[in-house]
Parts: sequence; structure tokens; C-alpha cells
Amino acid sequence: MMNSYTHRPARVDAQRAARLREDITTFHTEYCAVLDRGALEQWPLFFTEDALYRITGRENADLGLPVGLVYCEGRAMMHDRAVAIARTQMFAPRYTLHMLGPVRVESEEGGVITAQTPFLLVQTLVEGPSTVHLAGCYHDRFVRQGDQLLLAERHVIHDTNILANDLVYPT
Amino acid sequence: MMNSYTHRPARVDAQRAARLREDITTFHTEYCAVLDRGALEQWPLFFTEDALYRITGRENADLGLPVGLVYCEGRAMMHDRAVAIARTQMFAPRYTLHMLGPVRVESEEGGVITAQTPFLLVQTLVEGPSTVHLAGCYHDRFVRQGDQLLLAERHVIHDTNILANDLVYPT
Amino acid sequence: MMNSYTHRPARVDAQRAARLREDITTFHTEYCAVLDRGALEQWPLFFTEDALYRITGRENADLGLPVGLVYCEGRAMMHDRAVAIARTQMFAPRYTLHMLGPVRVESEEGGVITAQTPFLLVQTLVEGPSTVHLAGCYHDRFVRQGDQLLLAERHVIHDTNILANDLVYPT
Repeated sequence: MMNSYTHRPARVDAQRAARLREDITTFHTEYCAVLDRGALEQWPLFFTEDALYRITGRENADLGLPVGLVYCEGRAMMHDRAVAIARTQMFAPRYTLHMLGPVRVESEEGGVITAQTPFLLVQTLVEGPSTVHLAGCYHDRFVRQGDQLLLAERHVIHDTNILANDLVYPT
Repeated sequence: MMNSYTHRPARVDAQRAARLREDITTFHTEYCAVLDRGALEQWPLFFTEDALYRITGRENADLGLPVGLVYCEGRAMMHDRAVAIARTQMFAPRYTLHMLGPVRVESEEGGVITAQTPFLLVQTLVEGPSTVHLAGCYHDRFVRQGDQLLLAERHVIHDTNILANDLVYPT
Repeated sequence: MMNSYTHRPARVDAQRAARLREDITTFHTEYCAVLDRGALEQWPLFFTEDALYRITGRENADLGLPVGLVYCEGRAMMHDRAVAIARTQMFAPRYTLHMLGPVRVESEEGGVITAQTPFLLVQTLVEGPSTVHLAGCYHDRFVRQGDQLLLAERHVIHDTNILANDLVYPT
């Protein structure tokens, strides 16, 4: 199986890609709105029950290393992480802004949609300027549940070098 | 009445949301193109005659404070502001670039469309690098006039801390 | 003939503009995905055989000066440039991320689509933070070849001041 972050030419016809881009964009705007207002407890709800969530550096990803800075399997682990982050936020309050570029729809096969979306995580500490905390790309696999999309996998592959002990905000 | 910057779950069906996102995106691209080429005198034309335009910090917004750094009621006040800004630009020339994320369509009721759009205002002083001057989110209320959208309200809620005497470029 | 970077009111009806925006966005996501994974050798394939590619500063563009920091006529010149850049990358490895804003469709006449898209080129040196290396706007002319779009002209007009000897990554 190829790593999900490997580039492959898009293979969805133009009209279908446009429709899927709309659906995924709607998903993204809800996801980011929830995170950017600090409603961390709602974050796991954007994923399937046994979803994979990973944050890893580009270098690791290029080498095909499976692990990363953050690795959550399933909503329960995401919930724990959300609680830990919420606690940290009390000590070092900050605002986050997710700035997303256009969605690249790569494939749709057997109900699974593969897509990539570039992002900037802009962070603002109290009384400080806004800076690019993390720059990278989402490598996503979506499935449908009823009339909504859920993430079955999100690999957050970041270009930015970050310290291993930095508790990264969900991205 | 709830404050317009309060997060509420989106309640427009997917297909309609996609159509409205397109219309609002077209509006945004014209709005930003006008501002980024410095045609400040055209800026008030994107608003209804008695529109509300406000720039305020996230902290103020979260506390529900109505005022802000900039507060314009109606096109006439916006025009005055545009003139003041244009004058300042002569002394400290700079380029601005509005970088917008995807539009989140929240509601459409009685001809009023409520939407939010994250933005970065990137500023470049002559001979300098480009920096994120302001990061935040538009909280907009649009109405239709003929076949075009106009802003009835724009609340520019910024995460970035800015000095009270900084004459912020229209955003 | 007007310079291609001059602002002109958009003159495509809303529904057609939405469709063209989708097509161009799909083009952009492929273009950026190829560049951001470092596949420079594929870059010229997004252009017509005799396309014009130019990177120039906003000041030059506003003065109507035809030249720029980078000026390529035709795929062959682009290929040479790609090889030169690839060689530089070996000495100073870096990651790039193209963050694009929404496409502004300006016109469609005789098979030529004119559009502008704001961009940030975010650069990350090994072990460093991610910074805005270049901020500006694409001024594009697209043509169709079969069922895909190709660039007949791309003017990369940047706000950021850059040094003449800086070998700018394709943008």
C-alpha cells in the first residue's frame, strides 16, 4: 500500500471533482470554525469512531515513517488529547486561525474520497503579533455517514520544524 | 439578539450553501482586488447605504462589547475613513494583500445571508518583507440588490493585537 | 494593448464565472501540488509551448515595465530554469508551500480566460520556521487544450521586495 502522502495524479472527472470539492470545503469550514473558537471538545466528532489522526513532519513523511509527533487512533484518543490541550491553553492563552487553500480532490473509490488541502495555522499569543505557527498540507480520507462527511484519516504533514515537546493545537 | 460573531452551527442545505459560497466568493474577489490595488474610493460601494462596518479585537468580540477600533455606520462614514487612509498612505506607502480562506455559509433567512470568512491581511512596506499584519475572520451579513450582493454588516474580528492609534487599512 | 496586470471590472456572468473558477482552481491545485513536492521537471507542462512566464515586482508592474526578475518565453526556457533551481535546491534544501486565495475570473473571450489569484509562497528552510517568502498575485491567461487548461501567460506580480540575485522558486 502506498503511503497516503505520496503524490499521485488526480483521477476524478472535472465535474465530480468540483462537487466533491464543495462538500469537503463545507466540512473544512465547520472543522476550522469549531477549532478556531476553541471548542476542542467537539473536535473528535469530525472523525469516524476508529479514525486515524496524525501530525508529522514532512521529512518523516517523505521517508515513509509511520509515526509522528501526534498519533491518535480512534475518537477516544482524540478526546484525551483535546482535554490535554484545553488544559494547556489555560496557562498560555492564544488564538488560532486555520487558513486553508483550495482542496485538491485526488480520488473517489468505494465510498472513500482522498484529498489534500494546504493549510497555515496562524497563532496569536495575547498581546503579540500573529505568526505562522505551522505550514503544511492535510492528506485526508473521507467517508460519508448519512449526508455528511467524516474523516477516516487525517495526516497533517507540516513543513515547519517543531519541537517534540510543543503541544500542537489540533490542525 | 445574539452577537453576530457567536458561532452557530450552519443551517443551509449543502447544495444551496455551495451556490451561496460561489456568490460570496465572487463578491470577496472583487472587494479584495479593489482594496489591494489601492482604489479606496470604491470601497464604500460594496456596502448598503446604511451598512455597519466594524473592526474589533477578538477579546472585545468575545466579551460582547459593541464598539471596536473602527466603527462606521453608513457609506458616508466609510468614505471619510477611506479619505483619511488614502492620505496616510502618501506618507507611508505600502502594499496590502488580502488572503482569504473558504467561505462558511451559516444561514439564509428573509433575504439575509450570514457568512464567515477567515482572512490574513498581508502588508509590505517599501523595501521590506511581507508580514501578516492582521489575522482574523469576517463576520458578514449580505443582502441582494438586483443581481449583486452588498454588505449590510461586516464585523472584522481580528486575533492580532493592534495599537489603538494604528490607522488600519480597510479589511 | 493594456498591461495584463491592470485592474478591470470582471465581465463574466455569475454562473459562468463559478464554473470557470472551479476549472481554474483544479488547475491551481495540480500546479501547486507538483511544485510543493519538488517535481520541478513537470512544471513546464502546465504551460502552452510558447507561453510567457514572468515574475516581477509590483512597482515594475505598476510602471508598465515589461521585464522582471524572471522572464521565460516558451517551455524550453522554463525547463532550463527548472534545472537551475533544482541544482540550487541541493545546496540549500527547503520546502515550499503555495497558499492560494480564491480565483477572480475577469473575462472569457475567444477561448482565452483571464483571471487573477492572490498567493503566498511560504518557505521553510531545514530546522527553521515557515515564513512568507513572497506575497502577490497571479495574473493569468488560460487556454483550453482538449479538456484541460494550460497557461498561455502567467505574470507573477509580487508585493514583497526581493533581491535580484535570489533564485526564486517557481510560483
